[in-house]
Amino acid sequence: MNSGTIQLDQGSGGRATHELVEDLFIRFLRNDYLGQMNDSALVEVYGGQIAMTTDSYVVDPIFFPGGNIGSLAVHGTVNDLTMLGAKPLYPTAGFILEEGLPVELLSQIVASMGEAAREANVLIVAGDTKVVPHGKADKVFINTAGIGVVPPGLKIGGQYAQPGDAVLINGTMGDHGMAVLCKREGLAFEKEIRSDAASLNGLVAQMLEVCPNIHVLRDPTRGGVATTLNEIAGQSGVGIRLFEEALPIREDVAGACELLGLDPLYVANEGKVLACVPADAAKAVLQTMLRHPLGEQACQIGEVVATDTGRVFLRTRIGGHRLVDMLRGEQLPRIC
Amino acid sequence: MNSGTIQLDQGSGGRATHELVEDLFIRFLRNDYLGQMNDSALVEVYGGQIAMTTDSYVVDPIFFPGGNIGSLAVHGTVNDLTMLGAKPLYPTAGFILEEGLPVELLSQIVASMGEAAREANVLIVAGDTKVVPHGKADKVFINTAGIGVVPPGLKIGGQYAQPGDAVLINGTMGDHGMAVLCKREGLAFEKEIRSDAASLNGLVAQMLEVCPNIHVLRDPTRGGVATTLNEIAGQSGVGIRLFEEALPIREDVAGACELLGLDPLYVANEGKVLACVPADAAKAVLQTMLRHPLGEQACQIGEVVATDTGRVFLRTRIGGHRLVDMLRGEQLPRIC
Repeated sequence: MNSGTIQLDQGSGGRATHELVEDLFIRFLRNDYLGQMNDSALVEVYGGQIAMTTDSYVVDPIFFPGGNIGSLAVHGTVNDLTMLGAKPLYPTAGFILEEGLPVELLSQIVASMGEAAREANVLIVAGDTKVVPHGKADKVFINTAGIGVVPPGLKIGGQYAQPGDAVLINGTMGDHGMAVLCKREGLAFEKEIRSDAASLNGLVAQMLEVCPNIHVLRDPTRGGVATTLNEIAGQSGVGIRLFEEALPIREDVAGACELLGLDPLYVANEGKVLACVPADAAKAVLQTMLRHPLGEQACQIGEVVATDTGRVFLRTRIGGHRLVDMLRGEQLPRIC
Repeated sequence: MNSGTIQLDQGSGGRATHELVEDLFIRFLRNDYLGQMNDSALVEVYGGQIAMTTDSYVVDPIFFPGGNIGSLAVHGTVNDLTMLGAKPLYPTAGFILEEGLPVELLSQIVASMGEAAREANVLIVAGDTKVVPHGKADKVFINTAGIGVVPPGLKIGGQYAQPGDAVLINGTMGDHGMAVLCKREGLAFEKEIRSDAASLNGLVAQMLEVCPNIHVLRDPTRGGVATTLNEIAGQSGVGIRLFEEALPIREDVAGACELLGLDPLYVANEGKVLACVPADAAKAVLQTMLRHPLGEQACQIGEVVATDTGRVFLRTRIGGHRLVDMLRGEQLPRIC
């Protein structure tokens, strides 16, 4: 591991990223919090639980249908906090700017961040700006870290999935990744594919109101639904069975994926949540999701099983079973 | 402001940075916390005060005498939290890696972060890794955000300087900036100039034990002592008078500055704290600093005055007075 050079797939969110994180970051920075391997870390401060997270955004292009790097950075950090059941409160924003970036573009990006923050009801409380010479960065990179408060009694995390849980998602898969890719490559379809990037804290708050003992919440970003479910299966020591006929995919996204030879199960989302919900509460949670603007196409896509621990299987339309592994290699670089 | 392109001096920490921050970030992200304009923001969570900060590191070269980008990133965030009197607890770490970066280098950097975190008694609780194609970033950029708890009763900030306060510093000026610059430019002196980069939370905790009502603490990083004191003078509506003969400068740093036409008052430090201390406590605080390994060359360099509000003056060796303005333009790009 300490030989060789960094490869693009180590930033994919898939297996190579996991290996890098485990071999290097966990090894040298070892502590109980970092080892939690969830979207956020849970720490205790003043007798209460705080969720903390950090994410850097390097998306290319910086503007895409449905958002830009600024709104994406806010949504992403709000969502990472939300996935532990936290109420997101205070993101921070660190900018790395390339010399020569038009101020007008930066202005639009920062305005979008302000708007996204207002919509998600969070306050960006601290910022930092660095400028590097032309050619030493690509336009703009943004880091958003942040904290949120976790109400007492919640026990949500990738390690808590239970056999019998229903696996729910709030809508279609792969919209964000395909929106960014099509924009980057200049691919035009009849209708422009829009990113699903959105802050999910409002939706998730309603889901938790109906069922405070949701076991797992996780947003299938880099590596897509397949990689995220593999993480959950591994952390919880369970198997996950997906139902092929239930997987929600927009027609345009499916078409673009087919054209490009991509599997939408591995394509990133930025406004989706996967939830493992106790079977007896699944219907109520699903109905709540369907009533929310960000959950109009919510559905159950699978179930947690006691067999095949650590693995995800797809039950195909014709009744066969196919192993759905974690993302290997780099499918779509720089989609967030 | 919304025309033109981003220039290097807008990342200098000097006047151009302040204008960018005010015109763009404060304008679009406006809230009471962000407007505090201190090293960290103070927020209330669970009935207690939390300091939050974020900083991105783009230093070039990534290894320099006395540290590397990893240890620097930890020290910097620990110090930003410390400057509000907070006990730093939990930094986060976001990495942007350039494809092709030798894993061995990254490994050294992460190991240094772990060591710096242990020394400062903080835990890096969350991380993120992105990889961009070769040529789209410069080796590695690191963002460290973080939180700390602020003991009740403290009231420390750039806005609290009072006429009569003594201005103290814990040692020599400009070491970090010159160490990085000399390494970058391949300038060799008889003795290698070492960065002063260090976590100051231990030192500051002892200072606050002796005098809990220190008015201002601030680390003179980008823009150096001159820029930092101008910020304080502006925020507090006071004047600051520096004593030229008291300014502590290492001989090698002074020599290198002279050679390169740089004023050490504007050169960055990464292990220094400026403190505005009530006159009656100044001696006790100074003695405490002198006993600490990071304060062996501590001294009083000036005083806060009621005249010349918003300005910093240097009382020269021969008794004259010279205006010391905020850094204009870019003196030393990418020193942090």
